[in-house]
Amino acid sequence: MNDRKITILDTTLRDGAQSEGVNFSVEDKRQILKELDEFGIDFVEGGNPSSGASDREFFKSKGTALKNAKLVSFGSTVRKDLTPDKDENVKALINANTEIVTVFGKASKSHVLKILEVTEEKNLEMIKSTIEYLIKCGKRVFFDAEHYFDGYAEDKDYALKCIKCAERAGAELIVLCDTNGGSMEEIIRSGVKSAERAINVGLGIHCHNDCGLAVSNTLAAVDEGVRHVQGTFTGIGERCGNANLAVIIPNLQLKLNYDVISPDKLSDIKRVYNTLCELINTDADKSLAYVGSRAFAHKAGMHTAAVIKNSNSFEHINPEVVGNERRILISELSGKSALRYKINKYFNIDKDGEKLELILNELKQKEYGGYEYEGADASLILEVKRILGLYKPSFKLISLKCITEQPRRIRNNATAVLNLEVDGKETINAADGEGPVHALDRVLRRALKKFYPSIEKVHLVDYKVRVLNSEANTAAKVRVLITTTDGEKVWNTVGVSRDVIEASWLALTDSFEFCLQ
Amino acid sequence: MNDRKITILDTTLRDGAQSEGVNFSVEDKRQILKELDEFGIDFVEGGNPSSGASDREFFKSKGTALKNAKLVSFGSTVRKDLTPDKDENVKALINANTEIVTVFGKASKSHVLKILEVTEEKNLEMIKSTIEYLIKCGKRVFFDAEHYFDGYAEDKDYALKCIKCAERAGAELIVLCDTNGGSMEEIIRSGVKSAERAINVGLGIHCHNDCGLAVSNTLAAVDEGVRHVQGTFTGIGERCGNANLAVIIPNLQLKLNYDVISPDKLSDIKRVYNTLCELINTDADKSLAYVGSRAFAHKAGMHTAAVIKNSNSFEHINPEVVGNERRILISELSGKSALRYKINKYFNIDKDGEKLELILNELKQKEYGGYEYEGADASLILEVKRILGLYKPSFKLISLKCITEQPRRIRNNATAVLNLEVDGKETINAADGEGPVHALDRVLRRALKKFYPSIEKVHLVDYKVRVLNSEANTAAKVRVLITTTDGEKVWNTVGVSRDVIEASWLALTDSFEFCLQ
Repeated sequence: MNDRKITILDTTLRDGAQSEGVNFSVEDKRQILKELDEFGIDFVEGGNPSSGASDREFFKSKGTALKNAKLVSFGSTVRKDLTPDKDENVKALINANTEIVTVFGKASKSHVLKILEVTEEKNLEMIKSTIEYLIKCGKRVFFDAEHYFDGYAEDKDYALKCIKCAERAGAELIVLCDTNGGSMEEIIRSGVKSAERAINVGLGIHCHNDCGLAVSNTLAAVDEGVRHVQGTFTGIGERCGNANLAVIIPNLQLKLNYDVISPDKLSDIKRVYNTLCELINTDADKSLAYVGSRAFAHKAGMHTAAVIKNSNSFEHINPEVVGNERRILISELSGKSALRYKINKYFNIDKDGEKLELILNELKQKEYGGYEYEGADASLILEVKRILGLYKPSFKLISLKCITEQPRRIRNNATAVLNLEVDGKETINAADGEGPVHALDRVLRRALKKFYPSIEKVHLVDYKVRVLNSEANTAAKVRVLITTTDGEKVWNTVGVSRDVIEASWLALTDSFEFCLQ
Repeated sequence: MNDRKITILDTTLRDGAQSEGVNFSVEDKRQILKELDEFGIDFVEGGNPSSGASDREFFKSKGTALKNAKLVSFGSTVRKDLTPDKDENVKALINANTEIVTVFGKASKSHVLKILEVTEEKNLEMIKSTIEYLIKCGKRVFFDAEHYFDGYAEDKDYALKCIKCAERAGAELIVLCDTNGGSMEEIIRSGVKSAERAINVGLGIHCHNDCGLAVSNTLAAVDEGVRHVQGTFTGIGERCGNANLAVIIPNLQLKLNYDVISPDKLSDIKRVYNTLCELINTDADKSLAYVGSRAFAHKAGMHTAAVIKNSNSFEHINPEVVGNERRILISELSGKSALRYKINKYFNIDKDGEKLELILNELKQKEYGGYEYEGADASLILEVKRILGLYKPSFKLISLKCITEQPRRIRNNATAVLNLEVDGKETINAADGEGPVHALDRVLRRALKKFYPSIEKVHLVDYKVRVLNSEANTAAKVRVLITTTDGEKVWNTVGVSRDVIEASWLALTDSFEFCLQ
């Protein structure tokens, strides 16, 4: 057997569902499972079939044939007043119809006495009878030793007794859990070492991030010999979250030479991370190691110059290995070399220092007014064109009026009336929409498609609003970011105003202009 | 000397300013310095006085007398073609007028050869002459050994030569930098051990988070004997950011028994973190260890029941120690015990299972429609009142019309006309505003203050918009979150609609209603 092989279990659908703000539909769960499977995750914990209707339905209808992953159901040891064959939760685990079941049980004496309110012996009996019953019913069993490290710190012997009991009952994998996420590395290493001496089946590690150490504690456990790692791909999970697999996998594979995932899949990890964030409906963490959009973004003048000179000077790996890319940011600190790098991607003015100076100054003025081009390349390009006198607008605003009313109409509460000049011809159009921005989008599209039929394919995929000077509250400046696609390319535009409608209008017109230019 | 004493340097104003999206005004810098000083940070790196106008102005005008911190200026070793007395950057460091200066210089052979493009000897000479000159000019000098760990991995002897050279030249502190953030713990420990054997002055650690290990690598360096820690309070910094001090300080003090900050200050750390996020204009990380709003938030049914029973069952520390608080979240997973806990804070219906059931079902319907009460307690309370029939509106909408126009008027582009019934009397008012939401806020305030003068003190402090189903793009549902204060209390409300104006109206009226009830 390959001693460097690590298997991964993702618990987004179970522990991740316990995060604030996260609520999965059955369809969400199916899509997340599909992504994780295709990426090559070994085990996907699908949820607790007795915790909610959607988890039950998911296991019932999971349908899709999996390519790499095994779906795992998750549930507790038997209730203290029942036997496993009479316990609805245990039955639900069997009915979930997965080859593997994870059973969680307490490995901390104080939890046994104070939370479960049973004797130490009774807890061991519950672990034993549940695992034995599930195996009798044909299941393979993973045992999650809940609060193992806290239990180990308070009463080492009892914590070890619990996992030995699970091993004897037939669990094929014992997962050591830092359930509260409060353990320091020393206790993680010591707890793993003792577990290794006590049992012979495989060991897993499951860390939480309450001290910001879920990733490093996981790596420490692997360093001590653990070969099964649990976490969530985006780091979501109860409280501060679970160990972040999008960070752990590259660390294990690229830095520590373990065998986790095939290298071609690794270059897909950033895309998978972003897709999962979308499916989970959580913001992607821009600063996240390896996969964040800022992970290889350079701003400081001196750093930027050095990176352009020699990319590994301020990059610890080649961004392409994890499907990421180098970005050179434009700001007061970045200086001319960064701007030149960026502008040269689109314009041929490398040698013209005067023009570069002009562009730099104009962009600084815009940034001062609240614009930020770091996430809006399309608007940056249009702005540089304007500065260089290369910008020919495809349409010209004559007037726009936007009205919303309360009490609301049943549908399409907002109305926009737009008067545009295109190709020297005036065109007046009206459209309603669910809200003013929707009405704006529809009326502009309606006006333009007569002249530019290609606009039909273009649609917005994201619309974000950020309040800039929130102390000015509802009169604050807002920055609207719009992401648009024509089915192939994707581009981002920005608009800033104290009026959310105007900011949206600016970002929207940039988006259509960028497409038409 | 106290062997457990750790000194802290915060580099928010220097390394933090290199983050994407971060741009400090001089006033921002002053306020951030003040917060860090009052919290008890030992050293605050104020910026590079030769990198931009705002850094120069900040050092010129720093003004405020500091209570705890020393302000430190930061700059490079002398340029290769100059002597220190002729180098404008070195002069700027002297003119910054701080007692302590940090000089950064290369400690990696490949950087010396490929980026600086000088010989190994020349680099040592540049380190030596810069430090000696600054000391001659009366400065105390910290030396940042840039790329120390990468340099140590590639040529241990040369990396150690660089720091020995800085020590001999008179630097009183040598800071070992993992500039690219790519180092694993093993190399950090080994690099620190070697440095300790090589030199006698104090050692510092400066880690970046490109592998998600900035916190743990910092702790490992301290474990090896380093007693000076650098980072940023919110974790911002170039690329994936710097070591996060808001996480490191509690880890060092609460978990590892180092002496970092006075315990009464520690209980202020969450507030300081949030204030700094505001000043930096970055979103607070809700999931952040210790100080995030989710750090002690419980949702899963079983966990919630256990926490209510015995708080340390799923909490690694008492949240109050870091100024945080326990939160019980309401969701499908949380079940009745969580809802009961929350509702009981405000309503006396503990014994009434039927009412609780009714509330749970109604709230689920609202959540299904896009509402989320996890961050909007005030709206939750109002909604429960509505469900229980306890809600008496302070005002009633008759009609509202909101108009915006383009090309925009010079100021107050939006107009709102509001017809309300208050106390059986009809009142019609109009107001303009910078945008529709501003106009809405002003017209509602105008209408209500005749009847409720106390409304005068109330003002909005934050306004956020989140697009829910972004695939529906501009017709997507939006959720508006509003934070309001009356100068003492702060409360949050939520509104959901496909129309951003309507969603804002709903959150706004909840906010005023909450205050008036």
